[in-house]
Amino acid sequence: MPVLEKSLFLFLFISSFALDTARGFEPNSQREADRVTALPGQPEVEFRHYSGYVRISDDKALFYWFFEAKRKPEEKPLILWLNGGPGCSSVAYGAAQELGPFLVRSNAPNLTLNPYSWNKVANLLFLEAPVGVGFSYTNRSSDLEEVGDRITAQDSHSFLLDWFNKFPNLKSHEFFIAGESYAGHYVPQLAELIHEGNKKASKDSYINLRGFMIGNAVLNDATDQLGMVEYAWSHAIISDELHASLRRECNSFEGAGEGKACLPAVKAFLRAFQDIDMYSIYSPVCLSSLSKSPRSSKLVAAPHLFSQHETWHGMRRATAGYDPCTEDYVKRYFNREDVQLALHANVTHLSYPYSSCSEIIRRWNDSPPTVLPILKKLMKAGLRVWVYSGDTDARVPVTSTRYSVNEMRLRQKGGERKKRWGGWRAWYYREEVAGWVVEYEEGLTLATVRGAGHQVPLFAPDRALALLSHFLGDQSLASSRFG
Amino acid sequence: MPVLEKSLFLFLFISSFALDTARGFEPNSQREADRVTALPGQPEVEFRHYSGYVRISDDKALFYWFFEAKRKPEEKPLILWLNGGPGCSSVAYGAAQELGPFLVRSNAPNLTLNPYSWNKVANLLFLEAPVGVGFSYTNRSSDLEEVGDRITAQDSHSFLLDWFNKFPNLKSHEFFIAGESYAGHYVPQLAELIHEGNKKASKDSYINLRGFMIGNAVLNDATDQLGMVEYAWSHAIISDELHASLRRECNSFEGAGEGKACLPAVKAFLRAFQDIDMYSIYSPVCLSSLSKSPRSSKLVAAPHLFSQHETWHGMRRATAGYDPCTEDYVKRYFNREDVQLALHANVTHLSYPYSSCSEIIRRWNDSPPTVLPILKKLMKAGLRVWVYSGDTDARVPVTSTRYSVNEMRLRQKGGERKKRWGGWRAWYYREEVAGWVVEYEEGLTLATVRGAGHQVPLFAPDRALALLSHFLGDQSLASSRFG
Repeated sequence: MPVLEKSLFLFLFISSFALDTARGFEPNSQREADRVTALPGQPEVEFRHYSGYVRISDDKALFYWFFEAKRKPEEKPLILWLNGGPGCSSVAYGAAQELGPFLVRSNAPNLTLNPYSWNKVANLLFLEAPVGVGFSYTNRSSDLEEVGDRITAQDSHSFLLDWFNKFPNLKSHEFFIAGESYAGHYVPQLAELIHEGNKKASKDSYINLRGFMIGNAVLNDATDQLGMVEYAWSHAIISDELHASLRRECNSFEGAGEGKACLPAVKAFLRAFQDIDMYSIYSPVCLSSLSKSPRSSKLVAAPHLFSQHETWHGMRRATAGYDPCTEDYVKRYFNREDVQLALHANVTHLSYPYSSCSEIIRRWNDSPPTVLPILKKLMKAGLRVWVYSGDTDARVPVTSTRYSVNEMRLRQKGGERKKRWGGWRAWYYREEVAGWVVEYEEGLTLATVRGAGHQVPLFAPDRALALLSHFLGDQSLASSRFG
Repeated sequence: MPVLEKSLFLFLFISSFALDTARGFEPNSQREADRVTALPGQPEVEFRHYSGYVRISDDKALFYWFFEAKRKPEEKPLILWLNGGPGCSSVAYGAAQELGPFLVRSNAPNLTLNPYSWNKVANLLFLEAPVGVGFSYTNRSSDLEEVGDRITAQDSHSFLLDWFNKFPNLKSHEFFIAGESYAGHYVPQLAELIHEGNKKASKDSYINLRGFMIGNAVLNDATDQLGMVEYAWSHAIISDELHASLRRECNSFEGAGEGKACLPAVKAFLRAFQDIDMYSIYSPVCLSSLSKSPRSSKLVAAPHLFSQHETWHGMRRATAGYDPCTEDYVKRYFNREDVQLALHANVTHLSYPYSSCSEIIRRWNDSPPTVLPILKKLMKAGLRVWVYSGDTDARVPVTSTRYSVNEMRLRQKGGERKKRWGGWRAWYYREEVAGWVVEYEEGLTLATVRGAGHQVPLFAPDRALALLSHFLGDQSLASSRFG
């Protein structure tokens, strides 16, 4: 090797090492084994990403995918993203369809680089939980019978503590959790465990949790259901007669005095959504999916939303999105052997194919009717809580979110004028109204995203990223077109 | 001229003449003078079109633009399209932006051929009424002080009778009227005059009226206003507090017992729409228009909708549409001298520029609070009545239309099951749900168009044409994806 080349080589070697050390990335063979280096179809990028398993017990292992922030990861917060269902994969939805850097947008071999990836502003971690979801697994089939909110939160908490041992350099970073849909349960429940755990934690096991953000979130069954019914009527989907029956026979979903006619009314309600995309009411449906397996998958089905009337697997899932067939592409991609190899996934060769929402979890054992008390408790503890809502979703619609947040009886920020008409105001992104927002003294912000469906980052990636940046920065959303 | 060429010439001459005669187009110099032959930017087409004035009194002349059906006009019905406002031009909106064959879609020199033009299924007539609207004029300025519903209907009726003298071949055709927005007043009022006129008409002045179709139509002030408020809340535009105030202080718009706080609440309501397109709530607004003249134009402002609180010129018009700047292009196009010359328009050289909505009508003298009795009367007389609603319009929203139609207490068609949950059902276009529909025994059909704004044919041209075809053919809308 000639001298010049040799010194260049040495220079590069040293600076790369120096960079690692500066970031606190001491050699860590565990972590380096998870480094993803040859993901099929991946465009070239300057940040690193990692994926693989964290073993949380002898039998259980949870799968994660972690993306360093695009620039200066050592200065950026860490955000954990969770999808709902229950039973749906944060990798298949969050990472590959919504907010990750690499989107699966077609059956073409290449992944699409997402210009609005959330790792523009944060280190970004996706977790598949509980076991039975995505690549996360258990060797004890009885574990699958036990899944529910409680175990999901506990196992996710165990995962996090172990994961920080792989990535100790991130332990001191501000930590946030975000998620959508049934993650309205997961996120605050996990946050509560972390908050409680921190009280007795050693400095080493302390998690620097600062807040959480949940979108189109299942929060409070009674008001969530009422909101669905009001939304369907006001968006011209159900008849006056059905609307009146649901309100009357289901006793406005207040949980008592339900009439005999409630069940048939709820069935008629669900039928009304049979041929449209409930998660994005103005989008077309994916016709190829419909013809293949009309009732095979779903994005979200909260156990208690109409749970007395439907198994949570029973609701037809008409796929959502700009290209309504996106889910099919994702399923195909993650079932590829070369993709699984590159991601260090499915190392035990699971007996079932990868699917966006679990097809092997058949029961959900516990789901409290409300998480509002947890929200109130954690706000009181000083955590930042943002609730957002894509306003063209009929599954956990903006009316539900409004009713549910109102149940907490918080105090709106603002002066006299605001007190009269409410603090509800437009927020702006790039000179257009991006949605509406209201802020509460207790530390909660409720924001809507205009024209976005259930998976907000899929429909409004730019606005979703703006929302996240303001959340992370603890800043109010822009209050005028030119500000 | 060589023999061959001469006989070809003769052949063409004779066949063209024969065609005219077959269609009943006897030589008519009045009509031929109105033939449009050199419209700037117009693509070549195989149908004929005509425009110009019909003088309805010594001082008043109304402007029309008529398009023969694309094929077999002699077999197609005739449809008259009216825009609302009041004060808005059917040429600037209906013809050039929504459902005519030639659309003004940019400032480029060429017009865009509309593949979903309504002259695919009908002979299509646009009328600008009353005087002061578009190119329609009066020589007596006091006439402009007298405009209102009554005069608009009378003058439009006079226009029609005279127009049929220009186009006597169309007299025997089935005749329908359609329109949107404030044409919810114009259309039934004109239909009623025709219906009454027919009773005493000679065979020669009989108009073969069969029905009418109105979209996002102003129908009944109290329920229209209530529907606006409910729509704004359920679509996340206004606060809970403002919603409650409007319901309480304005006494649910029932017309009596209005509180002092109603006026400020209505003002706050209108402010909430300041920065979005009220006519298509999920569309961006045209930023160039906003900066130019934020309060200069409007598409619809029914005199009685909140009329006690606003002058009908006062409502800011954020333009609607896929390209939200469309209105600017239209205004520019129809102000061109060569365009006016080609259209035989502005022959008197009006002292004001052409505008989409009249800027010289300053008062609207009469507007009944409801047109529902007219609808009921004309249905009883056997006329076909279709009411449709683009469901992303907040100006005359689908909630208003539902409340208003309910006021008529009609009987829904259908058996027992339908009676239980209502006859409300999805209708389909090209395998997707196009909207919802309910049919009534009395002869009314109410259909929604999913995801379309105030000007349905602008947002959903294909579905709007399907709607029209079914209306004209007296057929129920498709009731399944594959039917």
